[in-house]
Amino acid sequence: MNDSPEPVSGNRPAFLFDLDGTLLDSVYQHVVAWHEALNEVGVTLSVWKIHRRIGMSGGLFVTALLRELETTLDEETLARLPDLHAEAFLRNYDSVRPLPGAAELLRTLTEENVQWAIATSGHRKSARHALRLLGLDEDAPLITRDQVRYAKPDPDLFLTAAERLGVDVRDSIVVGDSVWDLLAAQRARALGIGLLSGGYGREELVYAGAFRVYEDPADLLAHLDEVGVRRPL
Amino acid sequence: MNDSPEPVSGNRPAFLFDLDGTLLDSVYQHVVAWHEALNEVGVTLSVWKIHRRIGMSGGLFVTALLRELETTLDEETLARLPDLHAEAFLRNYDSVRPLPGAAELLRTLTEENVQWAIATSGHRKSARHALRLLGLDEDAPLITRDQVRYAKPDPDLFLTAAERLGVDVRDSIVVGDSVWDLLAAQRARALGIGLLSGGYGREELVYAGAFRVYEDPADLLAHLDEVGVRRPL
Repeated sequence: MNDSPEPVSGNRPAFLFDLDGTLLDSVYQHVVAWHEALNEVGVTLSVWKIHRRIGMSGGLFVTALLRELETTLDEETLARLPDLHAEAFLRNYDSVRPLPGAAELLRTLTEENVQWAIATSGHRKSARHALRLLGLDEDAPLITRDQVRYAKPDPDLFLTAAERLGVDVRDSIVVGDSVWDLLAAQRARALGIGLLSGGYGREELVYAGAFRVYEDPADLLAHLDEVGVRRPL
Repeated sequence: MNDSPEPVSGNRPAFLFDLDGTLLDSVYQHVVAWHEALNEVGVTLSVWKIHRRIGMSGGLFVTALLRELETTLDEETLARLPDLHAEAFLRNYDSVRPLPGAAELLRTLTEENVQWAIATSGHRKSARHALRLLGLDEDAPLITRDQVRYAKPDPDLFLTAAERLGVDVRDSIVVGDSVWDLLAAQRARALGIGLLSGGYGREELVYAGAFRVYEDPADLLAHLDEVGVRRPL
């Protein structure tokens, strides 16, 4: 009575991109902004521990931070944190740039008729700023936190992105800079490519399941043939 | 005619500490400050690449950055960078804190009659601020950039620190958060302990020669018996 499993298609993969640290050089600004927000409510947490949690959904991020603290925070303080972070991030936003090769990589995929989408734990409003920085149209395929029930490391963002493109997520490759992207990729049964551009170590990404690691979008673009995109020389 | 090598003494080790990222939670502020300084002279460099060079001597740091750039910088611009960095760092200095357990670790070593010194690629002036943050006296054993010919990853800072303590560097343990600390430790024939508190991955530190890796000073303090400091229960 078992259905035979659907065979793996070997189709040309679609690419599902994380945003912060993967296409946009914004991870350190987010880290510093969370550090400032926590300081404002009287919480001192080592900066590297914040860095290691970035890319999770806001809810899980706060749960993870609380686990590190010896004190608890009252509901009201917890509720203020996301806004304090957003304000601190805006103060540093001028220094945010696209990562090298980000716009060119997306353009190349489009030219090669390879489907792609962006799936971010961030909210629609800030993600739209990002589209502008990357020189993308407003209707570029973009899935944000507010469109799914659970953000990374749950797979919903990537599942929804694949659905939006009309592709099987198992034919897709997730590109992300954080452990949470790669865990979500595994949960979704997609392959994961890690990028070092979010500041995590190569092995952290490999141990989280990356089947290949590149430095940044430019490095991935230079090696697209390694991950299923054959282009004429 | 060969002298026989001096036997390894098995003495209780002395501890030679890096400062930024090892005792002080200041790496990310330094990273962001270098990013701002480079932006001010019109150079865009990905933030993670700056992070991976922090802890080198200023001269090597600039050489390493130039290798990443496609343009060169004129002498005058290069000469401005250290001051621009120092100014940007001071703007973020309010958020710099001792790392968890840093002051307690040093106090415990002193109580246990274990010798220690701090050896930093930073300059005397900023290192003295750091001593105050750590609650240390002005005459705490401190070796800074201006006292040696070459900074990390050359071994001079740690060699000079051991000499200052009157110990054999081969009986010493270097504690640092960056690859450059651990390479310098190997050059000096000291053992190296890596701390994750500078934001590098565990394996980056192991591959650079760390014989043990802890999270931060508090974690090292809790495991001092693993690295040669036996204390009564």
